[in-house]
Amino acid sequence: MQCDSLRGFDRVRALRWQEGALHLLDQRALPLQTQWHALSSSLEVAHAIRALIVRGAPAIGIAAAYGLVLAARECALLPPGQQTTAFIAAAENLRAARPTAVNLMWAVDRMRAALADQPDVDRALVEAKAIEAEDLAANYAMAILGAGLIEPGSGVLTHCNTGSLATAGLGTALGVIRAGFADGRVARVYAGETRPWLQGARLTAWELLEDGIPAALIADGAGAYVMSLGQVQWVIVGADRICANGDTANKIGTLSLACAARQFGVRVMVVAPTSTVDFGTLEGSEIHVEQRDQRELTDYAGQQIAAHGVTAFNPVFDVTPARLIDAIVTERGVVMAPDVEKLRGAFA
Amino acid sequence: MQCDSLRGFDRVRALRWQEGALHLLDQRALPLQTQWHALSSSLEVAHAIRALIVRGAPAIGIAAAYGLVLAARECALLPPGQQTTAFIAAAENLRAARPTAVNLMWAVDRMRAALADQPDVDRALVEAKAIEAEDLAANYAMAILGAGLIEPGSGVLTHCNTGSLATAGLGTALGVIRAGFADGRVARVYAGETRPWLQGARLTAWELLEDGIPAALIADGAGAYVMSLGQVQWVIVGADRICANGDTANKIGTLSLACAARQFGVRVMVVAPTSTVDFGTLEGSEIHVEQRDQRELTDYAGQQIAAHGVTAFNPVFDVTPARLIDAIVTERGVVMAPDVEKLRGAFA
Repeated sequence: MQCDSLRGFDRVRALRWQEGALHLLDQRALPLQTQWHALSSSLEVAHAIRALIVRGAPAIGIAAAYGLVLAARECALLPPGQQTTAFIAAAENLRAARPTAVNLMWAVDRMRAALADQPDVDRALVEAKAIEAEDLAANYAMAILGAGLIEPGSGVLTHCNTGSLATAGLGTALGVIRAGFADGRVARVYAGETRPWLQGARLTAWELLEDGIPAALIADGAGAYVMSLGQVQWVIVGADRICANGDTANKIGTLSLACAARQFGVRVMVVAPTSTVDFGTLEGSEIHVEQRDQRELTDYAGQQIAAHGVTAFNPVFDVTPARLIDAIVTERGVVMAPDVEKLRGAFA
Repeated sequence: MQCDSLRGFDRVRALRWQEGALHLLDQRALPLQTQWHALSSSLEVAHAIRALIVRGAPAIGIAAAYGLVLAARECALLPPGQQTTAFIAAAENLRAARPTAVNLMWAVDRMRAALADQPDVDRALVEAKAIEAEDLAANYAMAILGAGLIEPGSGVLTHCNTGSLATAGLGTALGVIRAGFADGRVARVYAGETRPWLQGARLTAWELLEDGIPAALIADGAGAYVMSLGQVQWVIVGADRICANGDTANKIGTLSLACAARQFGVRVMVVAPTSTVDFGTLEGSEIHVEQRDQRELTDYAGQQIAAHGVTAFNPVFDVTPARLIDAIVTERGVVMAPDVEKLRGAFA
């Protein structure tokens, strides 16, 4: 298939750089409200990442890159002797805003290397725009590579949001689904609602609806049942970090789907840019899994659900072992039945 | 262990018969509000079952039995020639209030048989009270049998609500957990929130808190991750229907947990009274799985979550194949690695 058949599938944008500020679409308010925030300092960008105004590993990386453009502008006003120290501090602050997404670390490190920690605003802007453009191009490449694995008329199940809202545009796993639909390979889509933050219900279902792709929202616990009915041939998900051996950290619930897929002969595809592959992390047990506020489970939208005093355990990610993954798709190619050697050969 | 060590663990009650009416604790309002409804007609009871004021397969069966006491009282006022027809109609209406819970059919059929379809109020009340008392006794028996399977110091994961609120008292799966905790076998409990209706967050977490049992609420999708950490040795769930071959219909999400359990060497225990075993249903594929309103997924508490126009698929139950179940516990005994012959031998 050609990129042309994907035209019209990347209208939604999560962020844009405009008039010296980073504009972010507030993903906490979607789909019922469309609110843009204009951020003009690196601290504001770090806050926006922490507060989930922007989310999705690739989008977080791009936002952090523009955050360093703003940091460069701030630091350039300081006395020369303080600039590098202040720039590094801003970079570290952005780098620490979310602990699991490797793209965030990758983007910050790439910006620091490109600038040699000197706050050159023009140079920073060139690099941030390159990161964004490369992400968009990578998504088109992954979409076409991943869709090629899907048999015509298949059902697919996805989790969380990996679409235009999570990336520079089109998406990773959702990009594959878009391309698969455009090409007649994907006939139906199930989207897990993705508790606790409901990215599937709020964001993915909205993106699919906007594109006219037939989709059904399901409870996260219903994934295995839908697979048992023979309605799903591929589970297609993104990744927050892919280890050297193929173990993959992704939104909590991914591991459940992968376990069910094995029981019912459904295949599992992980779609992420090469920047998500972290050869410095050998296997899943080394990944620090972020935990968020218990109230994300005990309350909903400010309303208390559980009794006062109930304790919750709220890990945001889980780690799917490579043995449960059939294919890892990056913009540079497809690795089937991933292991250390294949991944190193393909992406190192 | 003795039943004595379970004293204090069955204070909560979902229903009581008092002054000629069935009183139901409104489970839609828990845990934030404690509202009792007094129902004085069989139609009101059928409505309460449909509306989920009372839920949990055994509790539904008991409520229906008392519903037939009310039906008998209503029918006794009719001309003799119309009484049986009216009583059967009331029974059919109650029987159809929820399609999946076999206990409902079982309780209605038992009441009809005991009365030979004659609306004798005193006889009906004796039978309904017997159904309730037998359920409570069965729960104590199951609690002790099931707890005996658990190694001291274990972690357990449960789903939905199978406690005092779902039964005449103590509970099925939650009864086993209570007995296991009283006996030092259960050291920690994870409770899935159980979307879409949040029975875990609202009801199970509350019952465990009331009993002082250390528990953590988790998102349904987090079950596999918790198992992968080695924190769980048993998944312990109830059942809405157990087929002749051991395939088990239970709250949506159970199948996901059973698939994950197989991956991580965790065992799966199904706890239900013998009345839940349906030898007339040979295997899971014959079970009609109830689907409920899409708005249970697209909205929350009257608040819209998903974009207007999003479609949802909302099955309430799933079917776990017998091959993923390690033990079925009823008040009459334990069947390990269930199959047709073992179940027939133990419970037919």
